[in-house]
Amino acid sequence: MAAVDGLIREHMDSPVPVIPALADHLIAGSGKRLRPLLTVSAARMAGARDGACRKLAAAVEFIHTATLLHDDVVDSSELRRGKVAAHLIWGAPSSVLVGDFLFARAFELMVGAGSMAALEILARASRVIAEGEVLQLTRAHDMDLSQEVYLEIIQAKTAELFAAAAECGAVSAGAPPERCRALRRYGMDLGVAFQLVDDALDYSSDSATLGKNAGDDFREGKATLPLLLAMARTGSAEREFWVRTVDRREQTDGDFQRACELMRQTGALQATLDLAGGYAQSAKAALGDFPAGAWRMALYDLADFAVSRNA
Amino acid sequence: MAAVDGLIREHMDSPVPVIPALADHLIAGSGKRLRPLLTVSAARMAGARDGACRKLAAAVEFIHTATLLHDDVVDSSELRRGKVAAHLIWGAPSSVLVGDFLFARAFELMVGAGSMAALEILARASRVIAEGEVLQLTRAHDMDLSQEVYLEIIQAKTAELFAAAAECGAVSAGAPPERCRALRRYGMDLGVAFQLVDDALDYSSDSATLGKNAGDDFREGKATLPLLLAMARTGSAEREFWVRTVDRREQTDGDFQRACELMRQTGALQATLDLAGGYAQSAKAALGDFPAGAWRMALYDLADFAVSRNA
Repeated sequence: MAAVDGLIREHMDSPVPVIPALADHLIAGSGKRLRPLLTVSAARMAGARDGACRKLAAAVEFIHTATLLHDDVVDSSELRRGKVAAHLIWGAPSSVLVGDFLFARAFELMVGAGSMAALEILARASRVIAEGEVLQLTRAHDMDLSQEVYLEIIQAKTAELFAAAAECGAVSAGAPPERCRALRRYGMDLGVAFQLVDDALDYSSDSATLGKNAGDDFREGKATLPLLLAMARTGSAEREFWVRTVDRREQTDGDFQRACELMRQTGALQATLDLAGGYAQSAKAALGDFPAGAWRMALYDLADFAVSRNA
Repeated sequence: MAAVDGLIREHMDSPVPVIPALADHLIAGSGKRLRPLLTVSAARMAGARDGACRKLAAAVEFIHTATLLHDDVVDSSELRRGKVAAHLIWGAPSSVLVGDFLFARAFELMVGAGSMAALEILARASRVIAEGEVLQLTRAHDMDLSQEVYLEIIQAKTAELFAAAAECGAVSAGAPPERCRALRRYGMDLGVAFQLVDDALDYSSDSATLGKNAGDDFREGKATLPLLLAMARTGSAEREFWVRTVDRREQTDGDFQRACELMRQTGALQATLDLAGGYAQSAKAALGDFPAGAWRMALYDLADFAVSRNA
């Protein structure tokens, strides 16, 4: 992973000064590097002996970072990875264009890795992510969103990159198709678990721990599962509270705390975490046919971390 | 080119309704398709017999369209290809995300074309374009911009894609390196000529003909060559006019007409067009070693069109 970090630093460089400054603000020293870890672990577990997977791992982190930059512009977010969001420092136009730079750099890195199959996986994933983001944008305030469509959105916008990260690692290592499929399945379920926990943490953690503003989803009236479940489970007495705070987005001090209380009282938060736990289990089960060993253990630990984390 | 158009229409489709609607608004029935024409012509002239270049040509148009969508958000432009800019209809977030979708689709098409060398050229071009856009963003209002840096910016943000479009066509046709380099050279010079004329037209055409607002560059105080030359060539009597309208951007009715008059009086407009003419000649000269024939003639005509057009 240190070698991957080296590649990331090397490839975020540019003669145009704003680019490394903005990229460094977001990338260097922060971020959990979960997705590149997934690529490297999958490749190693599938028997990779050379460093080709490192370029793919760096590419995966660049795709992720590019989507973060564009997401924060789209959502007007204020905080990211414990720092002021880049668009508030350098402006939205710079965030959009540096996102484009990182996205292009990701494809340069993939070309460097030399695997057309890996390129196909990550190009497709990039497209699916964009589709997921657009779908979320158009349905963000739809409180009649079904759990099915919510899962479809988070599979596309989040889990697809986890799936592609694991799959392209396996493919680049020359693993047989059923192993590649198993690692893709693992990544997909891990990604869904990860996003479910993310959506729960927005109602149960604090900004300092999260590194982004807790309560952002509530303030934006974003149709995430904890909110959808809480609204469905509260009686008619609370109907007016949700209509005012979520539908009309007229919020005052204490409303977010009240929403968090209702999340807990109705069990909406726990139901979301339980669903995440199920996906984490399913992720681990997908690796059943791989030999026991340090790499499989690392991926099991990653699944446990995704659901036990508090940030 | 009809087959390329078919590919473009097919690949802008998506189950997420906003995507084909927004893409159709920008792509279908409008746009000059210069860049894909360049890819197809270069491939044919280099001896291509199959349709692999069509996927690359469609990919090139998608990269171009993605940058238009992001550019219009960055510049807050109101008009594009004779229509209201997409971000004013669907919002800036949708424009950013559909741009990402088209960019990813471009790479899916390139994977489909199956040439790693073409992928390398277009991935690099995408990165150089983003660098050029960021450089332009940071220097947009710098009236001390040298002609050298101005040319560096338009080479990166515009001419690089023309160069890559021609080069990848040649590469995909298996042309020898010197032929690929010659077509890259042609594309680069054509692209510079094209952008110089674009910057001149902003002071010498009208919105209806252009399909975008004439005078946008002046209203934004954008440091393009016609403006830089006009400011350098007007005497001290006009100093105050430029300081007020460009540096302070305090403009009233008639200021744009006055600026256009000064462009003509000082010869700034003609000097820009003369420089463009030189680049167009240089583009044609780069093709000297190719056999005379219909494809070379088409590329000669394209160079002539780039400098004689009024829109």
